[in-house]
Amino acid sequence: MISKQKQRIGMVGLGRMGANMARRLQRGGVQVVVYNRHTETSTELAKETGVLAADSLNALVKALPTPRALWLMLPAGDATESHLNELLPMLSPGDILINGANAFYEDSIAQAKRAEAVQVHYMDAGVSGGVWGLQEGYALMVGGDAAAVAQAKPFLEILAPGADKGWLHCGPVGSGHFVKMVHNGIEYGMMQALAEGFAILQGKTEFALDLAKVAEMWRYGSVVRSWLLDLTADTLKKDQVLADIAPVVADSGEGLWTAQAALALKIPAPVITLALQMRWASQGRDDYAAKLLAMMRNEFGGHAVQKEI
Amino acid sequence: MISKQKQRIGMVGLGRMGANMARRLQRGGVQVVVYNRHTETSTELAKETGVLAADSLNALVKALPTPRALWLMLPAGDATESHLNELLPMLSPGDILINGANAFYEDSIAQAKRAEAVQVHYMDAGVSGGVWGLQEGYALMVGGDAAAVAQAKPFLEILAPGADKGWLHCGPVGSGHFVKMVHNGIEYGMMQALAEGFAILQGKTEFALDLAKVAEMWRYGSVVRSWLLDLTADTLKKDQVLADIAPVVADSGEGLWTAQAALALKIPAPVITLALQMRWASQGRDDYAAKLLAMMRNEFGGHAVQKEI
Repeated sequence: MISKQKQRIGMVGLGRMGANMARRLQRGGVQVVVYNRHTETSTELAKETGVLAADSLNALVKALPTPRALWLMLPAGDATESHLNELLPMLSPGDILINGANAFYEDSIAQAKRAEAVQVHYMDAGVSGGVWGLQEGYALMVGGDAAAVAQAKPFLEILAPGADKGWLHCGPVGSGHFVKMVHNGIEYGMMQALAEGFAILQGKTEFALDLAKVAEMWRYGSVVRSWLLDLTADTLKKDQVLADIAPVVADSGEGLWTAQAALALKIPAPVITLALQMRWASQGRDDYAAKLLAMMRNEFGGHAVQKEI
Repeated sequence: MISKQKQRIGMVGLGRMGANMARRLQRGGVQVVVYNRHTETSTELAKETGVLAADSLNALVKALPTPRALWLMLPAGDATESHLNELLPMLSPGDILINGANAFYEDSIAQAKRAEAVQVHYMDAGVSGGVWGLQEGYALMVGGDAAAVAQAKPFLEILAPGADKGWLHCGPVGSGHFVKMVHNGIEYGMMQALAEGFAILQGKTEFALDLAKVAEMWRYGSVVRSWLLDLTADTLKKDQVLADIAPVVADSGEGLWTAQAALALKIPAPVITLALQMRWASQGRDDYAAKLLAMMRNEFGGHAVQKEI
């Protein structure tokens, strides 16, 4: 009888990623039990999708058959740590805990040690796919013991773009988040290259190029065709002047971790590192250096300095 | 009667790109007349595909009905210039001449002026697609007058991945090669970002990552999925140790032109420029600086210097 029942998984954290992953799992035939700090989010998702809403971590854990499977989609750092502190005493030996958030891989290795101390199997899963993952599936980079991965496999197969594609057991705990981190580092470099190219095209005013048409054309047969180009084409179609957009690019940690990993390994990664630094420059983090350069020109050559207004 | 006959186009230059484009045009229902400096190449292609082999430029021109359409696929610089010098006096007003090679866009603008002086319509076409273009179609970035582009349209629609996609009339003469140049600059940056990322993964030896599997997994659902990643996955599947490959990356001009264009326009393109410079470094073009740095450390700190062996 039990084997005929729907498999259950607990999803902790219903941000955009967590909520959509719960939707995809539920659509894939799994009974998802969700918990979110703001319980209204859980209740709404339950109404929409048929997931079960738990109003506490304790209720979530009680709603899952052993060995339990829990997926954490919480912000890295304190949020993940505090939920882990609360959860670990409630879990039983043999349960699996999958951390699918964007976390620094060394933190995941440390968390795994704490989980393994109470015989809970910890896996780190790097998840890519953004807002499109619900529809197209998530690329999943998983680190952990083979036995734990085998337990999680039914869920991974649903979340991924296909049962046999788009997910990988990369290696031991930590390797999933490491591979995801490098993936995002590559993304920084590819995005910067695309952005610089379109900026050059835009600057060549005498050709009056239609950047939306160029991007659309490149999507077919060109060497730079890519999902990032598809998204660029979409955005340029809507607006290629970008008059209302501030020239400020956020960074979310993964680019920095990649640059730091490259430094620790003494492997040159200049383009990825520079792409990160260009984002920082866009945030004004090179303003002090620019001010100082302006003053140097003033000291050395008597050149005029522009004052802040 | 004439309208029922196959349209004809002359293809000058049967390198890998020119020969495959002749094949694709011929398969697409056009009668292609080919000329190549080494006439055996023409004869062989004629046997294989049904194109007509001309044994001289003069014979090629005579085999085409007016207004003629000629496509040049010659190495940029002297080869293109000398063929142009020979061809222009043979052509008639109203003929179109499409330069599909990788040429510097300012050279194309100069050539167009010479062609227009004898009322031959010159178009520059940036062509992307590499060895896969025969099968998948070529991305075509075309610069020239609207009337000339209309004349060339039947050929562009066959060469492109689809009649209505993968080709674009970008703007005036020069804009086709300009857009293609920037496309290649972006390609340099994207390739470098991918290469750096895989180098970091490869350097994290304790995870013993299978780079071929990582690349294959990223092809589905990940943010970095792209044609360049597809090719990377293919090559890593065959060999991920790369023991027999020298760490030397050639550059073919387009990356340099892109960096130069960015400088001329005063538009920062640091990642594209750095990707080019990393290729130069791989060619040993930073060896003198490295030698001098080693000597500086020796002078300043008495550090040992490694001698060339």
